Amino acid sequence: MNNKLDERASGVFVIAVTPFTDDGRIDEASIDRVVEFYLEKGVSGITVLGMMGEAHKLTSDESRLVLDRYMKRVNGRVPVVVGVSAAGTDPLVQFADEAMGQGAAGLMLAPVPTVRTEEQIYGYFSEVLDRLGDAPVVLQDFPLVTNVNISVGTIRRIVDRYPNVVMFKHEDWPGHNKLSRLLAAEGRKISILVGNGGLYLPQELRRGAHGAMTGFAYPEMLVEVCAHFARGEAEQGEDLYDIYLPLLRHEAMPVIGIALRKEMLRRRGAIASAHVRSPGPRLNAEDHRELDSLNGRLMRRLAQSGASLARAAS
Amino acid sequence: MNNKLDERASGVFVIAVTPFTDDGRIDEASIDRVVEFYLEKGVSGITVLGMMGEAHKLTSDESRLVLDRYMKRVNGRVPVVVGVSAAGTDPLVQFADEAMGQGAAGLMLAPVPTVRTEEQIYGYFSEVLDRLGDAPVVLQDFPLVTNVNISVGTIRRIVDRYPNVVMFKHEDWPGHNKLSRLLAAEGRKISILVGNGGLYLPQELRRGAHGAMTGFAYPEMLVEVCAHFARGEAEQGEDLYDIYLPLLRHEAMPVIGIALRKEMLRRRGAIASAHVRSPGPRLNAEDHRELDSLNGRLMRRLAQSGASLARAAS
Amino acid sequence: MNNKLDERASGVFVIAVTPFTDDGRIDEASIDRVVEFYLEKGVSGITVLGMMGEAHKLTSDESRLVLDRYMKRVNGRVPVVVGVSAAGTDPLVQFADEAMGQGAAGLMLAPVPTVRTEEQIYGYFSEVLDRLGDAPVVLQDFPLVTNVNISVGTIRRIVDRYPNVVMFKHEDWPGHNKLSRLLAAEGRKISILVGNGGLYLPQELRRGAHGAMTGFAYPEMLVEVCAHFARGEAEQGEDLYDIYLPLLRHEAMPVIGIALRKEMLRRRGAIASAHVRSPGPRLNAEDHRELDSLNGRLMRRLAQSGASLARAAS
Amino acid sequence: MNNKLDERASGVFVIAVTPFTDDGRIDEASIDRVVEFYLEKGVSGITVLGMMGEAHKLTSDESRLVLDRYMKRVNGRVPVVVGVSAAGTDPLVQFADEAMGQGAAGLMLAPVPTVRTEEQIYGYFSEVLDRLGDAPVVLQDFPLVTNVNISVGTIRRIVDRYPNVVMFKHEDWPGHNKLSRLLAAEGRKISILVGNGGLYLPQELRRGAHGAMTGFAYPEMLVEVCAHFARGEAEQGEDLYDIYLPLLRHEAMPVIGIALRKEMLRRRGAIASAHVRSPGPRLNAEDHRELDSLNGRLMRRLAQSGASLARAAS
Repeated sequence: MNNKLDERASGVFVIAVTPFTDDGRIDEASIDRVVEFYLEKGVSGITVLGMMGEAHKLTSDESRLVLDRYMKRVNGRVPVVVGVSAAGTDPLVQFADEAMGQGAAGLMLAPVPTVRTEEQIYGYFSEVLDRLGDAPVVLQDFPLVTNVNISVGTIRRIVDRYPNVVMFKHEDWPGHNKLSRLLAAEGRKISILVGNGGLYLPQELRRGAHGAMTGFAYPEMLVEVCAHFARGEAEQGEDLYDIYLPLLRHEAMPVIGIALRKEMLRRRGAIASAHVRSPGPRLNAEDHRELDSLNGRLMRRLAQSGASLARAAS
Repeated sequence: MNNKLDERASGVFVIAVTPFTDDGRIDEASIDRVVEFYLEKGVSGITVLGMMGEAHKLTSDESRLVLDRYMKRVNGRVPVVVGVSAAGTDPLVQFADEAMGQGAAGLMLAPVPTVRTEEQIYGYFSEVLDRLGDAPVVLQDFPLVTNVNISVGTIRRIVDRYPNVVMFKHEDWPGHNKLSRLLAAEGRKISILVGNGGLYLPQELRRGAHGAMTGFAYPEMLVEVCAHFARGEAEQGEDLYDIYLPLLRHEAMPVIGIALRKEMLRRRGAIASAHVRSPGPRLNAEDHRELDSLNGRLMRRLAQSGASLARAAS
Repeated sequence: MNNKLDERASGVFVIAVTPFTDDGRIDEASIDRVVEFYLEKGVSGITVLGMMGEAHKLTSDESRLVLDRYMKRVNGRVPVVVGVSAAGTDPLVQFADEAMGQGAAGLMLAPVPTVRTEEQIYGYFSEVLDRLGDAPVVLQDFPLVTNVNISVGTIRRIVDRYPNVVMFKHEDWPGHNKLSRLLAAEGRKISILVGNGGLYLPQELRRGAHGAMTGFAYPEMLVEVCAHFARGEAEQGEDLYDIYLPLLRHEAMPVIGIALRKEMLRRRGAIASAHVRSPGPRLNAEDHRELDSLNGRLMRRLAQSGASLARAAS
Repeated sequence: MNNKLDERASGVFVIAVTPFTDDGRIDEASIDRVVEFYLEKGVSGITVLGMMGEAHKLTSDESRLVLDRYMKRVNGRVPVVVGVSAAGTDPLVQFADEAMGQGAAGLMLAPVPTVRTEEQIYGYFSEVLDRLGDAPVVLQDFPLVTNVNISVGTIRRIVDRYPNVVMFKHEDWPGHNKLSRLLAAEGRKISILVGNGGLYLPQELRRGAHGAMTGFAYPEMLVEVCAHFARGEAEQGEDLYDIYLPLLRHEAMPVIGIALRKEMLRRRGAIASAHVRSPGPRLNAEDHRELDSLNGRLMRRLAQSGASLARAAS
């Protein structure tokens, strides 16, 4: 099976967590478990070792272990995208080669935070992409975290020069018009999936985005919303989305978001521990009660709207 | 009537826009109109010349004009807080004196973006507060914009030293636990109103915030939600809030948010033009359609839930 | 006399301070005095109301007062460039028109700190330049302070589109290669003066810069160094420069630099008070002793090298 | 021999480069060579795997290789400090343990760039220091790069709580008064060495700093200047320093500085290749000529002042 990522990718590529045990070691059994969880919820792909995968808090050996376990468990059932962003190009390329050798469908790449002007940004991507060969690549555009701002013109320049850039992860903020301009731009079309925790998903799908790449703890909602839009049922998709929005906008908060997400995945049985590595957030009793409240309200809203949603989801 | 702000302030202090004509001049008639609009919606106070009031894009003369017109039209019906943040302390103090002389209830103050450590932050506030005398002051804590991060300890140090600091505008992000710690801190209690466009209002009210200081284009919802919470009806308050959340989270986007808000206020008849001064965002046709869609969905959701909400609102 | 700035400008355009009295009011008599000081030292032009002119800490009325006094005193003897950078375009254009009406030779303009991508940067300058008409403009490129990074391509795009952009103030850091690329770029040639407190002046003149726009408290050295280079005496110019470098690199420190510079100007009799407006640095006893030491060493070095320097300066 | 770092450390701890071959592999032979070079120049200690050691561009395996080779070659002749700053605390502690196991004299630690308030900064150091046990630690305070600003109070709080914090690397900017306040603070005295490429070394030594931790390509000058100051010969120390200042301020430029430094070390025979890993600067022909010019001028100045300097250095 040829599982390489291409421009036609759509739907939900879930940003996978890296599960740890309570004492902070990689929890390989939970990797297996969360893979099955994601696949049951219908995701189209899995992105491992991204920013929310705490990749920067792993040793090289641990990164290899996580990659290996994810690849083996997914076993080709969906494409796996591997985050390879790193401060140094040599380690980046080395790990990217290992990932592709293990059967990754593609690599996700954000700019280093030290590039500033468009020529520096283009220069950075150019040097890295020249060394990555023909491995399919996802460009990640997340200025809130990287502090790097890329214009539509530079993105297109990269896409036009490098045919292996097949996907764009859109999480500029605010970015609705950037998304529209990217979609309308001339030249080779690529897949555009949106991030930002899914906080603007319906508006972005209405503007033409091809799906989502984010890790909300109810990925089945993201999957279903994308499916609605794919069927031309925008209003129904947004109706479903709005039910989850209160919890989603809570989980989408920076910094504490990863802890909230892991705790929700733990409660749902997808992972054994909600441990986040240091430096990172810890939930206190009030955070837990708040999550109880938001999740309880979600359950009630789902129950109330049950008939119509069940019909919509069938 | 003594209208000075004190620690007991609660409810909704709306962040007022500065209305312009289509060609960019101050629209005094729209100031009158939007004052009536805000008061009809039941706000407890009005904050003028804040960041969303585009204060930094006015000349000194224009700031005086806006202040004067707002003060005259409100005419003591609710307290008016005046944003005075400025790069230089001398102009700041001069304008603050003018505002208090005009009958302002208090002054809102954010740190200059060049202070970094806590001792610099305390030093900055200390110097300004020493010169502001006994005018009631609202501290604004908005790191996303100011790039200044203030700890709970430093906030308390300021509050304990300066009895005229009577209110805190909370918009650190993520900031739920900071809010809880501020509310639980020992010492003189002050009023804590939340900002961030209201994006976390129910959670913040559950944690004990005293109200909101933000400018969502449907301020009546903020007012009603705060009233529900004041009556102990948290679930009903959050039910109402959640109906507006899709539009609110759209309007809460940075940069473009002010244009979306002004356009909504224009559509609602509160101001004559949605003009935002340069440099600033302009809405295009797709932005307008998106707003149509979100607002149309809100109207339908309100209609569907009409009976219960009407009862709640009575 | 037509005193308008054009592409042939060279030499030293001194960044003028705004003198205050000890209690913080504009010191008009010291404006007169410092103008004579600068002119005696041989500067080719004077730039008022720049960042080091504490323009952002003045009211609109005070800015007008400073502008007026400088213009009257200089009285056409050298061109006066007026800093007009401001958060809002309407006040910016209004003040720029006033400045040109008063006889300014040109306007200096830096980008607002909120623009990020090259298209935003170009868009910002484009909108402002469209409104400034044919007034000669100096683009200021100072990323350390503005947090805006402009590529050579975008600078050239602006220069090629707007013939009234006649000068570029270069203070990107590190920026030697950017300077060389700007100088080598095709298209209309403009004047390139360097800033950064003059910290790299000899290297920048060797690469082809046309002069300096900075405010070191010994402007006569900057003038003499530029004159040496103009005569092809690079080594002698750098010899002279190196004598002053220890003090210059001290004064070039950010934040405290303006206080050091004003204190040196006060000691030299150019202004009556070294007062810096708040928020701003204050020198303590140790800072003064340090300045004594550095200045004393400079005096001794000058005395030691007296003969050769006197000859060079003759 | 017990070679552990303690509060009495002074003189020059050179920031060591990581030498690469022209094709980017670790150059172990050049590690040996540069160790001998540094030791011949009289340094008191060597700091490896710091920011200028390009530590963030190495794989875990390569970091171990560099550490191992440096430790073996130095072989206890001077203390070796190992930079361990990392995005994740688990890998940080693991590598720190390996370094101490290899005989490191101490560890250098900067804050992660995501901490902001003093309580977050203290919290970060506290968690890491609790896990580092009794290994001697150097706190690095370099806001220009880390974007983290630490007040004197917080530094003292850390020092007072953790007796194994024995040294402070001062490179806040501007920071002369911070240095003085740190030196004057009550409590346990620790060693304070200055960085910033040595750009303010004489002033900092006059204020009481105990030495330098930086990597200027002429470390013998730093050593000699510190020795002069230790003997109470401040003026002679500064005379010597000023001769090198033109080149030093050139090498101290951010970003391109590491390439200039490596090229100078290559020219001096200390390493075989000036290769800097990507993403990183490359020198062009004009950069090389500029370095020729600055270094040529230095050689001439040294020759001119030969007698007195030779005497001073004897």
